[in-house]
Amino acid sequence: MSYNTFGREFRFTTWGESHGPALGATVDGVPPGVLLSEDYIQRFMDRRRPGTSKHTTQRREADQVRILSGVFEGVTTGTAIQLMIENTDQRSKDYGDIATSFRPGHADISYHLKYGVRDYRGGGRSSARETAARVAAGAVAHAVLAKLAPDMQIIGYMVQMGALHLDRDRFDADAIDGNPFFLPDAGAVEAWSDYLDGIRKDRNSVGAAIEVLVRHCPPGLGAPVYAKLDTDLAAAMMSINAVKGVEIGEGMAAAGLTGVDNADEIRMGEDGPMFLSNHAGGILGGISTGQDIVVRFSIKPTSSITTPRRSINSRGEEIEVITKGRHDPCVGIRAVPVAEAMAACVLLDHLLMDRAQTGGLRGRIGQD
Amino acid sequence: MSYNTFGREFRFTTWGESHGPALGATVDGVPPGVLLSEDYIQRFMDRRRPGTSKHTTQRREADQVRILSGVFEGVTTGTAIQLMIENTDQRSKDYGDIATSFRPGHADISYHLKYGVRDYRGGGRSSARETAARVAAGAVAHAVLAKLAPDMQIIGYMVQMGALHLDRDRFDADAIDGNPFFLPDAGAVEAWSDYLDGIRKDRNSVGAAIEVLVRHCPPGLGAPVYAKLDTDLAAAMMSINAVKGVEIGEGMAAAGLTGVDNADEIRMGEDGPMFLSNHAGGILGGISTGQDIVVRFSIKPTSSITTPRRSINSRGEEIEVITKGRHDPCVGIRAVPVAEAMAACVLLDHLLMDRAQTGGLRGRIGQD
Amino acid sequence: MSYNTFGREFRFTTWGESHGPALGATVDGVPPGVLLSEDYIQRFMDRRRPGTSKHTTQRREADQVRILSGVFEGVTTGTAIQLMIENTDQRSKDYGDIATSFRPGHADISYHLKYGVRDYRGGGRSSARETAARVAAGAVAHAVLAKLAPDMQIIGYMVQMGALHLDRDRFDADAIDGNPFFLPDAGAVEAWSDYLDGIRKDRNSVGAAIEVLVRHCPPGLGAPVYAKLDTDLAAAMMSINAVKGVEIGEGMAAAGLTGVDNADEIRMGEDGPMFLSNHAGGILGGISTGQDIVVRFSIKPTSSITTPRRSINSRGEEIEVITKGRHDPCVGIRAVPVAEAMAACVLLDHLLMDRAQTGGLRGRIGQD
Amino acid sequence: MSYNTFGREFRFTTWGESHGPALGATVDGVPPGVLLSEDYIQRFMDRRRPGTSKHTTQRREADQVRILSGVFEGVTTGTAIQLMIENTDQRSKDYGDIATSFRPGHADISYHLKYGVRDYRGGGRSSARETAARVAAGAVAHAVLAKLAPDMQIIGYMVQMGALHLDRDRFDADAIDGNPFFLPDAGAVEAWSDYLDGIRKDRNSVGAAIEVLVRHCPPGLGAPVYAKLDTDLAAAMMSINAVKGVEIGEGMAAAGLTGVDNADEIRMGEDGPMFLSNHAGGILGGISTGQDIVVRFSIKPTSSITTPRRSINSRGEEIEVITKGRHDPCVGIRAVPVAEAMAACVLLDHLLMDRAQTGGLRGRIGQD
Repeated sequence: MSYNTFGREFRFTTWGESHGPALGATVDGVPPGVLLSEDYIQRFMDRRRPGTSKHTTQRREADQVRILSGVFEGVTTGTAIQLMIENTDQRSKDYGDIATSFRPGHADISYHLKYGVRDYRGGGRSSARETAARVAAGAVAHAVLAKLAPDMQIIGYMVQMGALHLDRDRFDADAIDGNPFFLPDAGAVEAWSDYLDGIRKDRNSVGAAIEVLVRHCPPGLGAPVYAKLDTDLAAAMMSINAVKGVEIGEGMAAAGLTGVDNADEIRMGEDGPMFLSNHAGGILGGISTGQDIVVRFSIKPTSSITTPRRSINSRGEEIEVITKGRHDPCVGIRAVPVAEAMAACVLLDHLLMDRAQTGGLRGRIGQD
Repeated sequence: MSYNTFGREFRFTTWGESHGPALGATVDGVPPGVLLSEDYIQRFMDRRRPGTSKHTTQRREADQVRILSGVFEGVTTGTAIQLMIENTDQRSKDYGDIATSFRPGHADISYHLKYGVRDYRGGGRSSARETAARVAAGAVAHAVLAKLAPDMQIIGYMVQMGALHLDRDRFDADAIDGNPFFLPDAGAVEAWSDYLDGIRKDRNSVGAAIEVLVRHCPPGLGAPVYAKLDTDLAAAMMSINAVKGVEIGEGMAAAGLTGVDNADEIRMGEDGPMFLSNHAGGILGGISTGQDIVVRFSIKPTSSITTPRRSINSRGEEIEVITKGRHDPCVGIRAVPVAEAMAACVLLDHLLMDRAQTGGLRGRIGQD
Repeated sequence: MSYNTFGREFRFTTWGESHGPALGATVDGVPPGVLLSEDYIQRFMDRRRPGTSKHTTQRREADQVRILSGVFEGVTTGTAIQLMIENTDQRSKDYGDIATSFRPGHADISYHLKYGVRDYRGGGRSSARETAARVAAGAVAHAVLAKLAPDMQIIGYMVQMGALHLDRDRFDADAIDGNPFFLPDAGAVEAWSDYLDGIRKDRNSVGAAIEVLVRHCPPGLGAPVYAKLDTDLAAAMMSINAVKGVEIGEGMAAAGLTGVDNADEIRMGEDGPMFLSNHAGGILGGISTGQDIVVRFSIKPTSSITTPRRSINSRGEEIEVITKGRHDPCVGIRAVPVAEAMAACVLLDHLLMDRAQTGGLRGRIGQD
Repeated sequence: MSYNTFGREFRFTTWGESHGPALGATVDGVPPGVLLSEDYIQRFMDRRRPGTSKHTTQRREADQVRILSGVFEGVTTGTAIQLMIENTDQRSKDYGDIATSFRPGHADISYHLKYGVRDYRGGGRSSARETAARVAAGAVAHAVLAKLAPDMQIIGYMVQMGALHLDRDRFDADAIDGNPFFLPDAGAVEAWSDYLDGIRKDRNSVGAAIEVLVRHCPPGLGAPVYAKLDTDLAAAMMSINAVKGVEIGEGMAAAGLTGVDNADEIRMGEDGPMFLSNHAGGILGGISTGQDIVVRFSIKPTSSITTPRRSINSRGEEIEVITKGRHDPCVGIRAVPVAEAMAACVLLDHLLMDRAQTGGLRGRIGQD
């Protein structure tokens, strides 16, 4: 994994800036003979596309993906796949102060300190626009997983937005795609909507927590001790813009538990081990057990707000910054499909790695 | 980064099982001409060594490190450094049931499912004993950092153990090394000691949360977007045995904040930017800003307890498991020096990566 | 280095097929602040462009490179650079038999055996068209080297074409760009031209040998023992289509020499060691010595000829194959700029790796 | 592949210096459940062990390999395997001048220029002693190949030593292990022996060429375009000490061939394609075809000779160097088992990579 590349066997390299001509992903290590089309990828793109509800940036991007290589007559050839998304709604306005001023909590200043030069238009490389390329790469991973692990399901949803938390007793996976928050509770949508309207009216923004649930993940995925499945999932989520924390299963709460409470006891099921609880989040010793995998992460509120904040500019002058333009009051919303994409890439990567090392052989239980 | 290797420019590969003849780390990418000795490394090893207090496993290991290569006449030569630690107190007893039974919450079952075969003695490769090799590699990183970034300080400490939390108003870095809990509050040590005694008497174990603070980290470390500094720190911590969550700065709490509250405002200090708060934990857009870096993670309670738990064995029979032997009631304690070692490795790795790409040049503020 | 990626610190991933919509290179690890423009890259592209003389394929490609990311206001930003070349002259004819028949000596059959599916149009991914992307990536490397190692010169030229050999006594570097063969001997051009005309008239093709000379390479580049400079140069050249052999310095002839003859004796020059010969080709123990680096490689004759050859098709039927279409009678000619590009990428990669590990410090001679 | 690591899926990192306490290889990515013992590895070690004939260095090393991890109850566990070889015959003599003087043609000076410091004892890290670790790693690869590709044979032998060439008409594979030269022609052994005696008496050394033949390699191994099988074989051989050239099939001679002559025509055999010749050396487009793979490389004569050569020392003084001590008059001899080991590692690596990407599926010929 190098600077702009993620993954080992299944790898993608993303490129492009928010206001450049295009951005995309170069995807490598893809098995041959997998059905893949631009339409298939587009369905994933549309879930994170901006401007689809009043709760996301009003920037209008078609986010049309073009497959430039690696697919022939509708199937993957095993060679590198280039996915390109042209930027169509980057406004060529005068950026004025933005070029030299640093938004508090934004990567402006750290890019300036590291590189000395940066594409300041719309955040350049540090813009969440980069996540469009992740979703495109994730769609390729989904296409391969559909063939190699057809039962696997990867489901992302919001569990918190600022002061509001998901009521887990009301969890309804079917509700997720029916509302702009990817919220698994239809009944709470209106309250979340009103809350976020208030945040925006206050010229403010708000953080969020997202959870990704992986059902029917085969056991045995994960390569201890530095390519553990949970390690790679943590890296995948932490690499998403604005993420500040990642949890597997009990996550930070594990610090408060005792060994008696935390033990996921095991009984013998009809087709293998049956766990009586899932504090572990489906991963033990960095290897999947076959239980549901549960990953959670937090997204900080965007630093691009219209409430003035104190800062400095590159000349060292003290200034006040107000970020105009089109920004999501809660960037966490659109992080849901991004997280699903990253999870798909990690799981496929480990499926291929496991196939390389073990050939997919599994230790048997109760059969000898 | 492959299976048992961590890092990019500064890389180490750990090897060895809990009850094998030895374990160690193969360290590569080390700059030449750095002072390094076995005594220097030993000081780091002794901080995590077992059997040093009643609160850790009574297994007695000298954890003596031998440098087998890469150091000549007291300085590194730039070639691979082999660090070997011989196991001296692995008891050659009859392991009986352990060979076939799975401890709930332990990697026994996932290793069995993945590899079909495993070294069951003391947990084999999945044992926390592997972390001794990390500390040895981390000592090498510390030696190099002492030369390349002499002001940098890496300080680990416990902030939670089960129901007990550090009172941050009483934070005292000088207290950390004066007690077996790496607790930065001398006044709370007795209470923590009594609490853990109680846990052990209950044939139980308990989780913990550890924080690592990095002072005087140079700005500009971190390579967006898939080698971000926070991404690599998250991977480093999540790769440690029993870790279930990782946080940077506000961590999971960021989900509850608004943009107005979360913004770390900036003023101009005498020698560069001065931040008025540190919600970000010293990292923006994956790049260090020069502020203190704050990383936090949780450790689950060890699954090796003497209270019987329901489980199965490899024959598929339902059984009750009691884990005898010498185990830490709170594995989190000894995770502190391990976390410091992992942080040192990540920071050095990024220092070298940054030197490769930028030559250490920095964007200037207020000088043009 | 993974499937379609070359390099460690300075890395590029090429993508695209001969007759797809486009091909290109995703370049990562580029230092920031380096002047780079499409015009600059184009100068390198034009040296390898097809259709520029009667001795190369008559396929007409503008090989216009577009920079899609990583460059802002004329300088590199340190982020991933996407270079795209659109295919404009891929003929949408009926490929008929080509889809199922295998050209002897061509990758048709090996791609079929590995992937089961392949883009047969113009050789798809196995086409030498891929080398256009290498030249584009190499141009980026040249731009960075111009800043970091301004004295370095990388000069490629032909030393053999079939039965004809360069007369080294007549070596004239200034002649190289004045003829279609990159031949450093203006006086021999006419003979080489007549010879190749004869080959083409015979419905045949011919092999070639190319040499790359690197002048003023700094000493100390190369990381033993598995990232040696000569190892990486060998891999770079062997990865070029149709290459069958690679030599450093004396190359295969070293097998016939004695230690007395092969020793490059050393005297003390004004500014460091002065070697009295260069059998080693500028590299000792995998590390550059500061002498000229000499790399040589062979290119087999293209298998695409209009003389019928016996083969089979995917149905297992025995057939005779004649390859119509536009092919170079000597693919070795256009391999010269490709080899220069690969050499530039390897040298920059090692310059950055060396900067990472040693900071560019050098062991001194005669100064203490 | 980083500094001291070779391979992608099957990886080994070598460590250790010629006169340090030990050297070895850390082997990772090994499939689980493979039979492996120290005795098995030892058989490979003994083939390259010094002091076994008058034609190799008289240094006496048992080259006893210890397996320190990754093997349990006689089978591999899928975790990292540490192989350690203790140095027993490094003489603790006064190294005197060697510490500061540079042998012409030796890595002494390049290590000094790169690192500023070096272990000068016996060449330190640049010593051919490092190849012992390669042979140990190769033995692990052989053990895995014996399970995954039982028909595969990897056969190395000398084809040239100075002025003497193998008479290919007399090629006899069975003769290889019956003489100290790994020469496949028993009748020529005496002449080769006399020739080498003469070289040594002249206080001289001589180069050699070695060929590795791989029989029954499955088709489909190799990942274009930067992990081609021939690219990795070239890197593997060029990374061996003193190698100056690498050839696949026709090698450098391909430059002199025409397309008509070079085409390996194909007919349909009983179980797939049957090639009528093998100019390609078993690899097309970087992918194995199922034909015999043929790799050839040259080894320069050792620079350690007792004939005085002009050189300088680290103080910049001009000196004459005579290398006393125990050196091979033809280092090429012991390079044979090293080359077999490297070939085994590359082939296993690609077998695992291919299994990861394609699952070992093959495009069929003549079955639809």
